[in-house]
Amino acid sequence: MEVEKAIRERRSVRTYRSQEVKEETVRRILDAGRWAPSGLNNQPWKFLVLEKACKDSLAEYTKYGEVIRSSARVILVFLDREESYHYEKDLLAVGACVQNMLLEIHSCRLGGCWLGEILNRREAVHAKLEIPGHLQLEAVIAVGVPGGGTQAGVRKELGALWIGK
Amino acid sequence: MEVEKAIRERRSVRTYRSQEVKEETVRRILDAGRWAPSGLNNQPWKFLVLEKACKDSLAEYTKYGEVIRSSARVILVFLDREESYHYEKDLLAVGACVQNMLLEIHSCRLGGCWLGEILNRREAVHAKLEIPGHLQLEAVIAVGVPGGGTQAGVRKELGALWIGK
Repeated sequence: MEVEKAIRERRSVRTYRSQEVKEETVRRILDAGRWAPSGLNNQPWKFLVLEKACKDSLAEYTKYGEVIRSSARVILVFLDREESYHYEKDLLAVGACVQNMLLEIHSCRLGGCWLGEILNRREAVHAKLEIPGHLQLEAVIAVGVPGGGTQAGVRKELGALWIGK
Repeated sequence: MEVEKAIRERRSVRTYRSQEVKEETVRRILDAGRWAPSGLNNQPWKFLVLEKACKDSLAEYTKYGEVIRSSARVILVFLDREESYHYEKDLLAVGACVQNMLLEIHSCRLGGCWLGEILNRREAVHAKLEIPGHLQLEAVIAVGVPGGGTQAGVRKELGALWIGK
């Protein structure tokens, strides 16, 4: 799929069919994340992929639990504090990494949803999954075969974002 | 250009030819940024595009000034604190926005370089460009027609990033 199309067409998918997502496809999605740029090329991200049973146990930590339950897999993206050199820049890099994965998901004709609200329960999620202390959850991405409509992508006009030149 | 190719092929380009980048192309790059996802769809970014004279005046604020001087244009990306709802999530969103622009730049067969070191002089840049107080510089992207080789993209192996499942 063309970059221009993927960037503009990608939407959050919140309901999925019961079909599985192949291991090979999950690897391809993570691989896309791996190619994101980062300050000093420090690549401060780590990934955790959860399958059925373990995935569903995460649902209770977010009001969007239904998205997690409906999905085939979830990918957790962590900031690795041991690899971090500048907290703010590292968060920007993790955001770039997540976006690569979302674009790859869309390009695979799958649906993804970036769940951020679950960060409100970060400590509980860390405890539940026994996450090593140097990793900090930054994003959860639900993935699956799209099973329903998506909302229209509403964006501010470019003119409203441009502060002169 | 295919998403998969753009994600894996994109590199930081640090030297450029003297050719201009069309206004229309700059708009296309910013438009790609605009389509990034953000928490609650708050779109907390603002853009400032600098052309020749003004652009070059930024060079003194970074040790990578030569990249700025060599480029055709630079795009400054700000976090708009008035649109911000959660600092950490908003930084992740700005990172996603920057990545969309870098992919669009590559897809246009142009070169881009994400300059982060200049954030060390953020206050001075804000003052120089008379940036409104609610905007916080997060990234500078140099853009131009590639004029030299790029470094090999070295990435950690996927296995080293995967913390089990």
